[in-house]
Amino acid sequence: MVNQVDRETTLCISLAARPGNHGVRFHNWLYDRYQLNFLYKAFAPEDITAAVAGIRGLGIRGAGVSMPYKEQVIPLLDALDPSAERIRSVNTILNEGGDLIGYNTDYLAVAQLIREVDPTLPVTVRGSGGMANAVVAALSDHGMSGTVVARNHVTGASLARRFGWEFSTETPAEAKMLVNVTPLGMAGGNEGGTAFSEAEISRATLVFDVVADPVRTPLITTAEEWNIPYITGGEVLALQAAEQFTLYTGVRPSAEDIATAEAYATEALPISN
Amino acid sequence: MVNQVDRETTLCISLAARPGNHGVRFHNWLYDRYQLNFLYKAFAPEDITAAVAGIRGLGIRGAGVSMPYKEQVIPLLDALDPSAERIRSVNTILNEGGDLIGYNTDYLAVAQLIREVDPTLPVTVRGSGGMANAVVAALSDHGMSGTVVARNHVTGASLARRFGWEFSTETPAEAKMLVNVTPLGMAGGNEGGTAFSEAEISRATLVFDVVADPVRTPLITTAEEWNIPYITGGEVLALQAAEQFTLYTGVRPSAEDIATAEAYATEALPISN
Repeated sequence: MVNQVDRETTLCISLAARPGNHGVRFHNWLYDRYQLNFLYKAFAPEDITAAVAGIRGLGIRGAGVSMPYKEQVIPLLDALDPSAERIRSVNTILNEGGDLIGYNTDYLAVAQLIREVDPTLPVTVRGSGGMANAVVAALSDHGMSGTVVARNHVTGASLARRFGWEFSTETPAEAKMLVNVTPLGMAGGNEGGTAFSEAEISRATLVFDVVADPVRTPLITTAEEWNIPYITGGEVLALQAAEQFTLYTGVRPSAEDIATAEAYATEALPISN
Repeated sequence: MVNQVDRETTLCISLAARPGNHGVRFHNWLYDRYQLNFLYKAFAPEDITAAVAGIRGLGIRGAGVSMPYKEQVIPLLDALDPSAERIRSVNTILNEGGDLIGYNTDYLAVAQLIREVDPTLPVTVRGSGGMANAVVAALSDHGMSGTVVARNHVTGASLARRFGWEFSTETPAEAKMLVNVTPLGMAGGNEGGTAFSEAEISRATLVFDVVADPVRTPLITTAEEWNIPYITGGEVLALQAAEQFTLYTGVRPSAEDIATAEAYATEALPISN
């Protein structure tokens, strides 16, 4: 550390109510790998307006934004990238010479992960929170349409309506791509639960679980067992962080380096929860 | 670095128009030595008001303040420590749970370095800038009185008046303690110049040069040659940084560690100019 921080070092940060160590480890590992004089540090600000003022005041290059600030920061920024504009949710702030621009790299990561998916596949997204918003937007922008399944009728129906999807409280029998964007399967909470029944999974040709901790959720392990192709929350987590890294540094890391950074970062996940 | 920065890491910074690497190297070396999860980073803010807002907004623990911000920050703080109040100049901001308190560790360092000096010694201070202010205040608070010598009659006479000292354009013949607070002897500018004539130095019993780069100014090497006790700008620089370190961390480093940190820090001085 002593040798690596100097007055030229560019600082990137994260702003979250309860910061984890994933971003810190992921970004710093890649800075090191690409020999960039950058440093990443997590903050838990008490006042998000003051914290964004700090990004401007100290010329911080970029900031990851987590719950509960993803919408709150919007009026504090100078512009929104289409990725954030589309879903009115910012998870990344880029400081371009004093102009703060909001991005959503979750949207960018999901869009990239589903690039090869057949857009005619009937899809069901379970969940209606902020991340479900990003997922449905990315699927829609890929030309897909389907059903939002949620216990919350208000947010579920609203999300479906916004993108011209169906809303239901049950997964339709014809669903071929299943996407879980609920906390079901997440460590420490509903770990045993799954968003889809075994019958539903058995009919699927693609499974996507946004839960990243653990990466191997019951949904993913079932898909793996039955040889159903799947996309994991770990891939989203790594790719959205890699998109941030590219925005901050201008350097696009190789797929291999992203995977190694992610492996390094998630070694620490148990500590961060 | 990768292993040492996490979400718990406490950030301390410096704010300067043209930041050097001294603070970065000095503080980070001591954080490492005392195994403190702290990190020090230099910033060159464009807007000091926004930068101080950043200290609040990001919960930064402390900030060194350099030219030209030492007076400008005062209205942005919540309170002044007597060290800064006395001379209306802040070189250190301590964030105490959201309250920003201004300190002047230059004053504290000079006060500590002259603690053993005979207060009846007739003293001449050459210079009338911000640092001369800190030096004359510390000498006065030690019970000393003397003459301010400066080319600038306005600032010189004003400084002398404020502390009940004499003002002159020439060093009085009776001066026994000589203090240089001008840039004379500094690298890159008036390197060859000295603030006092050889005749004046030959009559002195204590010489104090605030110039720290190089530490061995012509004034100091002359004093050393003639076996006149001296205090160097390097001692001030190290001690004021050590006072900052103690304020930020609550840990008082040993004299040996301060000396090693200073040696480590000044190895980089040629690069920073």
